[in-house]
Amino acid sequence: MYARPPVVILAAGRGERLCEDEKKPPKPLISVLGLTLLERVILSCKGAGIEEFFIVLGYREAEIEPRFPEWRKKYKVSITTVKNQDWRNGNGTSALACSPFLSSAFLLVMCDHLFDPQVIARLIAGGNDGEACYLLVDRRTEQVFDIEDATRVQVQDGRISAIGKGLEAYNAVDTGIFLCWPFLFDALRQAQLEGDGTLSGGIRGLAKQKRMKAVDLGEHFWLDVDTPKALKHARKLLMKRLVKTDEDGFISQWFNRPLSVRFSAQLITHCPSEQVTPNMISLASFFLILLGAFLFGFGGYAVSLAAGILCQIGSIMDGCDGEVARLTFRTSRFGAWMDTLFDRYGDAVIVTGVSYGFWRFHPTPWVWLGGIFALTGFLLASYTKKEYAIRYGGGFPNKGVWAKLIKRDLRIFMVLLGAILGYPYFFLLAIGAVSHLGIGRLFWQVYKGRQTVTR
Amino acid sequence: MYARPPVVILAAGRGERLCEDEKKPPKPLISVLGLTLLERVILSCKGAGIEEFFIVLGYREAEIEPRFPEWRKKYKVSITTVKNQDWRNGNGTSALACSPFLSSAFLLVMCDHLFDPQVIARLIAGGNDGEACYLLVDRRTEQVFDIEDATRVQVQDGRISAIGKGLEAYNAVDTGIFLCWPFLFDALRQAQLEGDGTLSGGIRGLAKQKRMKAVDLGEHFWLDVDTPKALKHARKLLMKRLVKTDEDGFISQWFNRPLSVRFSAQLITHCPSEQVTPNMISLASFFLILLGAFLFGFGGYAVSLAAGILCQIGSIMDGCDGEVARLTFRTSRFGAWMDTLFDRYGDAVIVTGVSYGFWRFHPTPWVWLGGIFALTGFLLASYTKKEYAIRYGGGFPNKGVWAKLIKRDLRIFMVLLGAILGYPYFFLLAIGAVSHLGIGRLFWQVYKGRQTVTR
Repeated sequence: MYARPPVVILAAGRGERLCEDEKKPPKPLISVLGLTLLERVILSCKGAGIEEFFIVLGYREAEIEPRFPEWRKKYKVSITTVKNQDWRNGNGTSALACSPFLSSAFLLVMCDHLFDPQVIARLIAGGNDGEACYLLVDRRTEQVFDIEDATRVQVQDGRISAIGKGLEAYNAVDTGIFLCWPFLFDALRQAQLEGDGTLSGGIRGLAKQKRMKAVDLGEHFWLDVDTPKALKHARKLLMKRLVKTDEDGFISQWFNRPLSVRFSAQLITHCPSEQVTPNMISLASFFLILLGAFLFGFGGYAVSLAAGILCQIGSIMDGCDGEVARLTFRTSRFGAWMDTLFDRYGDAVIVTGVSYGFWRFHPTPWVWLGGIFALTGFLLASYTKKEYAIRYGGGFPNKGVWAKLIKRDLRIFMVLLGAILGYPYFFLLAIGAVSHLGIGRLFWQVYKGRQTVTR
Repeated sequence: MYARPPVVILAAGRGERLCEDEKKPPKPLISVLGLTLLERVILSCKGAGIEEFFIVLGYREAEIEPRFPEWRKKYKVSITTVKNQDWRNGNGTSALACSPFLSSAFLLVMCDHLFDPQVIARLIAGGNDGEACYLLVDRRTEQVFDIEDATRVQVQDGRISAIGKGLEAYNAVDTGIFLCWPFLFDALRQAQLEGDGTLSGGIRGLAKQKRMKAVDLGEHFWLDVDTPKALKHARKLLMKRLVKTDEDGFISQWFNRPLSVRFSAQLITHCPSEQVTPNMISLASFFLILLGAFLFGFGGYAVSLAAGILCQIGSIMDGCDGEVARLTFRTSRFGAWMDTLFDRYGDAVIVTGVSYGFWRFHPTPWVWLGGIFALTGFLLASYTKKEYAIRYGGGFPNKGVWAKLIKRDLRIFMVLLGAILGYPYFFLLAIGAVSHLGIGRLFWQVYKGRQTVTR
């Protein structure tokens, strides 16, 4: 019925703590990692499948509205500007300004509250009766950033019994993400008559009528970006969330990822997003690997060292495509598919280059047999996992030491290490052998039905 | 509620048209491709998740019952023997003999009706109200084998209005597969009182009460094995169903599959199933490939030709594991996974062997670079498809000329063809190039979003 309700975004307020300075952009246009706060809110909703937006503007609206045509086109969403002359009288007046447009369920969010797309589905699933308005609340009150400033909520039996900034007794925090029905507007009008122009005033009215319920956010991410400190925290959090502690291999976790995350952050902060797409980063990483493999073909210590470093940089950059995609809401199935395909071709050229470089000085067919041995291990370690995922309807165990031993980050790092020590070919053979052992071990595990490694 | 009801199998009758001869086994124990008719019925039900069986015996029961302990253990099912002294008076008496055991929904099938496991789920899904008994009927009356002898059914608005062998007006055929409730027994008793001891008599009684409905079989497989001619037909049909017209590559479809199906049929007819498991066939096929690849390493025309033939035999046998598994209800995820893994390792050793054999007479590194080129193409052609299936939540287009050009059957056949013509290495390179082209084409297709190739 309302799986994809329209979204009202309140962006009319002054947000003075973040924008003391009139020379700086107004709050909705403040950038975090390449996207303005308002864009991040729009794209989070878009990620949940929503395409219809009503954005309420007030303070410095003339600077904000001109951005909408570009966003409509770029993000393929419908944006209706709702102007609220009355914005100084509280954010309740801004919500109320949308009442002519809405006759059914709608979402209500703040322009300065960042969140995961998944929370929208959670809110809609949790609040599906149409008898009450629903507020997404965070039960992790001890972990909330800047709890002093947060809007506190008391939840009893799923119903909101009290809400307010100063609340002494509270067991949850207001995330600023609502699922509402038009009867909210009646409550807002009533609160206004009583002299309270805030959204919280209207919510309190609904709470008194027992028509205000709470949906638990669970473990999802949200953040209220209210102060310069919160802005810094947002940037840090968004970057931190790129590290896949479970999936990343040893080298990736401790070496590649910390570097690639910083590089990605710099990239999207300083380069226009049209110029640096995730797929272009994948390509660039692949070309670095190609160049490194080519250099390996010459053999010799210095050239091999340079080759190893190039490949390692390629390996680090290989993380950036996904990071940039996730930070700018541009993940795509094609991108993920292309990335893995390039990774495998990259593995093949590295093996070829290293083998050729070694063969130049040791011209025996055993060099090539070893190269084929390593290459088969590299490609089939990945293949085995994918094939397992298809046959068993789920991913292969991705945690555990052995799973991490057959990952690409380690392969390339071993080749660099070998180049540093003067034996890239032998390190290639060694990690190739580890790959075959890893396949054998997984095979044995599946054969025995003892899939003790957790996924 | 009754997703996995118990099954009553009627195996008490004489089946004289199939067993004129007392020296031959009784009808339920007649073998088709390594399994008795009764085992096939049990395993088809087991394939639908059912584990509780009541088997009604009468004629020559002393020969049939001794097999049950073995089947209970081997197939992990519960089998209760129900003896019907009265079997000569019609198969209705056999069904009635089960009435003490059944107080809820149950399936009723004949020991000589073969069918796909999927039809059970279809029948249960179609007949879930408990108000009527349900008969699975085949609407494809023109296609039914031996329509003269079939039990004909007239279906009106989902209800069975008439049933019988001689019926002139009919629009469906009785498959002998029923979903029943205990009120069937009342109808059988009533028919018996009226002098009709057949199951059809009871069904006619239910039809009169408007408590007999029909579920359409759809396009699924079933066959009534009543005569020696039908037995031959059953064997033929079961074998024919092994050919995967859509998925099989060119060589597989026209050369490998016709041979492997015959070989599989011989194997399971003449070898005890414990001695020839599908996984052992996979292993045997892999060892043939290993041996072929080893021989290729020597180079020279005669040895290469022998090697090519060995690899081709391995490729043909590679079809047998799946065929034997499907014919004897022994398909497994592990088996399928292992088979593909061995296939890829097999590809790797063939490339190694052919390259080494050519290098012995043409010692230049280009031989090895070409080998790595071909190997990468072979492995990544499979990898690309699997990765696509994971990312896009479905299989890669498996039909169409290009999809068939990057399949294993063709690779190995090309190497044999090369060996016959004296150039296995160059044929390897050529089919390697085709594999890379195939990957490139699929990549381009996915990139353009033009997935015109149907799955």
